[in-house]
Amino acid sequence: MKRLTVLVLMIAITASLVAALFVAVLPFAAESADDPKPPASFRHWYHVNAMVIDKASPLFAAMGGMHNVYINSTGEAALKKGVPYPDKTVFLIDLHEFTISDGSYVEGPRKLTAVMLKDKKKYASTGGWGWQAWAGGDPTKPLVTDATKQCFECHQARKDQDYVYSTYIP
Amino acid sequence: MKRLTVLVLMIAITASLVAALFVAVLPFAAESADDPKPPASFRHWYHVNAMVIDKASPLFAAMGGMHNVYINSTGEAALKKGVPYPDKTVFLIDLHEFTISDGSYVEGPRKLTAVMLKDKKKYASTGGWGWQAWAGGDPTKPLVTDATKQCFECHQARKDQDYVYSTYIP
Repeated sequence: MKRLTVLVLMIAITASLVAALFVAVLPFAAESADDPKPPASFRHWYHVNAMVIDKASPLFAAMGGMHNVYINSTGEAALKKGVPYPDKTVFLIDLHEFTISDGSYVEGPRKLTAVMLKDKKKYASTGGWGWQAWAGGDPTKPLVTDATKQCFECHQARKDQDYVYSTYIP
Repeated sequence: MKRLTVLVLMIAITASLVAALFVAVLPFAAESADDPKPPASFRHWYHVNAMVIDKASPLFAAMGGMHNVYINSTGEAALKKGVPYPDKTVFLIDLHEFTISDGSYVEGPRKLTAVMLKDKKKYASTGGWGWQAWAGGDPTKPLVTDATKQCFECHQARKDQDYVYSTYIP
């Protein structure tokens, strides 16, 4: 009986250790070295536009808040010319909460940052664009697990604009 | 009689030329070399925040629209630290129209650009800040003729924040 107890205990401890190991390793395993990372210092990128999505919008659950859209220098000329974007173009949405007070919509804390990143070869199945988003802008909290369903299905409607919703506002 | 006609004609031509000269010179004369000019390429400056002021706001007549606030590199560190701004700091508001469609507030054409520019000595009577704004962002269309009444009287309420309404949103 004593031997059996020790055996059960050892199995239980091993199982716990294996489980703990999985929990620790999983967040890293989910992200490969090739996955997009949240870009640093995007607030010095070219500011494309601001937008507010409020409760009246069907997009509120997924994208409600105050949007600031930026583009990196690689894509800036294509945005202004209205032509397809070159590889390594990155669009970034910095999405924040907002409060309304006396008719003023005031920006609050960050909800998420989201990028779309051009690589015609790598992301051929989703229009040449890769997508990722991070809760609170935190690189350890990626939100996109299925870019086709979560991103591309909606962006497909803008195929004639290289899948991009933003346009150049001089 | 002929001499008189020639004399009258000469006076008329001279008067026209002088008048034409005044019309040509006046837009420049109205602005001294010291007046603030609309800064170029501010959309690469640090983006401070976005804001919407809609019809429900008492500020709608003067400042209604979609605001994007930028700061030049001189002032960026002070914004982040929450300390008084150094001379040559420039805040810029890029104010655009907006339309609302299905709960989305979408940025439209530019209404004006406005700056506040720090120079403790030069603008000592208005908290150390100079102000100017331009209709449509056009340098030939300045809007501020009395900075005390049009700008400072409202900004005075923020004396404890160096007269600045914007705060740092990380």
